[in-house]
Amino acid sequence: MLSNFILTNIGSSNKRLATDVVKDIVDDEISKKLDVKSLISTSNNTIVLADLGCAVGPNTFTSMERIIDVIKRKYQSQCPTSAMPEFQVLFNDQPSNDFNTLFISLPPEREYFAAGVPGSFYKRLFPESSLHVAQCHYSLYWLSKVPEELEDKNSPAWNKGRIHYTSAPDVVLKAYAKQWADDFNDFLNARAKEMVPGGLLIVVMPSIPDGIPYSELANGILFNLMASILLDMAKRGLIREEEVDGFNLSIYAAPPGEFAAAVEKNGYFSIEAIGLTNPAPWLTDDVHVDMREFLRHIRAAWEGMFIKQFPSDVVDEFFEQLMLRLPEVFEQMERAYKDKIQSHYVLQRK
Amino acid sequence: MLSNFILTNIGSSNKRLATDVVKDIVDDEISKKLDVKSLISTSNNTIVLADLGCAVGPNTFTSMERIIDVIKRKYQSQCPTSAMPEFQVLFNDQPSNDFNTLFISLPPEREYFAAGVPGSFYKRLFPESSLHVAQCHYSLYWLSKVPEELEDKNSPAWNKGRIHYTSAPDVVLKAYAKQWADDFNDFLNARAKEMVPGGLLIVVMPSIPDGIPYSELANGILFNLMASILLDMAKRGLIREEEVDGFNLSIYAAPPGEFAAAVEKNGYFSIEAIGLTNPAPWLTDDVHVDMREFLRHIRAAWEGMFIKQFPSDVVDEFFEQLMLRLPEVFEQMERAYKDKIQSHYVLQRK
Repeated sequence: MLSNFILTNIGSSNKRLATDVVKDIVDDEISKKLDVKSLISTSNNTIVLADLGCAVGPNTFTSMERIIDVIKRKYQSQCPTSAMPEFQVLFNDQPSNDFNTLFISLPPEREYFAAGVPGSFYKRLFPESSLHVAQCHYSLYWLSKVPEELEDKNSPAWNKGRIHYTSAPDVVLKAYAKQWADDFNDFLNARAKEMVPGGLLIVVMPSIPDGIPYSELANGILFNLMASILLDMAKRGLIREEEVDGFNLSIYAAPPGEFAAAVEKNGYFSIEAIGLTNPAPWLTDDVHVDMREFLRHIRAAWEGMFIKQFPSDVVDEFFEQLMLRLPEVFEQMERAYKDKIQSHYVLQRK
Repeated sequence: MLSNFILTNIGSSNKRLATDVVKDIVDDEISKKLDVKSLISTSNNTIVLADLGCAVGPNTFTSMERIIDVIKRKYQSQCPTSAMPEFQVLFNDQPSNDFNTLFISLPPEREYFAAGVPGSFYKRLFPESSLHVAQCHYSLYWLSKVPEELEDKNSPAWNKGRIHYTSAPDVVLKAYAKQWADDFNDFLNARAKEMVPGGLLIVVMPSIPDGIPYSELANGILFNLMASILLDMAKRGLIREEEVDGFNLSIYAAPPGEFAAAVEKNGYFSIEAIGLTNPAPWLTDDVHVDMREFLRHIRAAWEGMFIKQFPSDVVDEFFEQLMLRLPEVFEQMERAYKDKIQSHYVLQRK
């Protein structure tokens, strides 16, 4: 049954499904922890929300509207006779994101002021103390860059014959983990400046229980197959083997323990909720998986990284080979660990 | 000498030239009237600016940076020992604007947080009391729509044989003036909500001295020629005459008297500076005007309105005819009134 690990691959188009699982938890935490009455007293009667890594919609719209509804209900219970605050939603993604599509797709009947904020969320994006609620769905999975050690042929972390930390020596895993922790610390420092005390930061991302090796996950199996295909292409002279050794996917599925340790070390946020879930528990073994459709999703999700390293005819050949060889690992991927591969966190600015 | 009225036609690409003329006036007013110290005390140490109708840059960037520099100098004189406030710039334009290009062109070394805000500035765009300085360069020239009376065949304002209020009966001019005043009032009401008391609103736009008929301006002569070409095309059976009668350019160059009266009637802003300038006094008769280049600008500026009314082959034929017949009025356009056809205003939120 492949469908549930597709969720961690294809990003935006299945974000809604993946995050529905933690919807109730997040709603509860906002209801309990967000003191709307006190927040708006210092903010001109406006609640400001941000979606960090929003892509082009429509999931970001439904997700933001859901949070606004929860805040409205909370405020009505806090101040039943007061006029509702205004809402502003800041849609953030990289400058290369298609904001034109996002803006044209904005729901015409929206009850908030919308703005697009281009830039990396590992840096400052918004003015000081201007943000009340921020969410980051599946985007903290992407590192700001490939760890430098992996690009140095003389480093012990030179990742020979692999394209990820799956099945790699500990030194490679540690380089990935350190890059993620550094990036995440930058993220938290920037948000600490931008969020008001009491503000909530919601994070959902691909994860793995602490202690389980990534090779037990369907994605890990897929990454190993991808490496094997690239090495075969090197043997056929289509690319150089060093190009494969020097190519690494810049993604890291932080286990909750590492996430929590990074938050504690950073010091600006308290952890109000933390957990692991199965992103797609409703999918059963008899759900039909169309192999071509699956590969189309895989390609949409990962092609960008390959294109940076290899010419487009090589990338085409690579995905053709992947189509041919996926059956080799299909059953193994179906049996892979997939129970708790999505983590969620609700952090509160101290 | 055609170059100086091109300025009022081609929008963004010559905005910088056109607005340089009033640069010093606006800088002075910001220096004198903006109480930066008091504003940041209620805004988390952040000054928020907006460019209303920003297009895709780069003029919006240089223009916003200039204003930021003036504010910084003012703050340094007010609070020489304090840390500089942070700045946020909100770039607004219609959702159909190319924000992708705008975002990719943002100066990497900018000293402000940037956000794009899609939407019509005749409606609310930003949260309550969130804006300190807003500018609107050449965008209040565009009406929200063609006045309804002009689209009603049975109305006395049915603009038979014309495409603008140039040389039209008074009832047509009045319909345009009313539409502009209504739009501008909507604009002021929205900004009144969004701007903090003491905030400054800078407007620069094509204008005309009160009392001068639009037919004395080069653009007016051009619009009359355009109408004549369309009527000839109707005679040749390429379009129906009614289509010409029902087609009207949705632009209005408000004279300063009407602008001031609208501000007074609205009541939320005081007028701190008002004036008319020649947008290009440095251009002299010996500046070479390339007719093809001029027509390319004309087409870029106006084609959008024609495309809404006529099929694209008709629009192509129209601009070919314009190329052929422009020499008929070229000298007349050169001799046209062009001394004070740009107005500027600095308004302050009461």
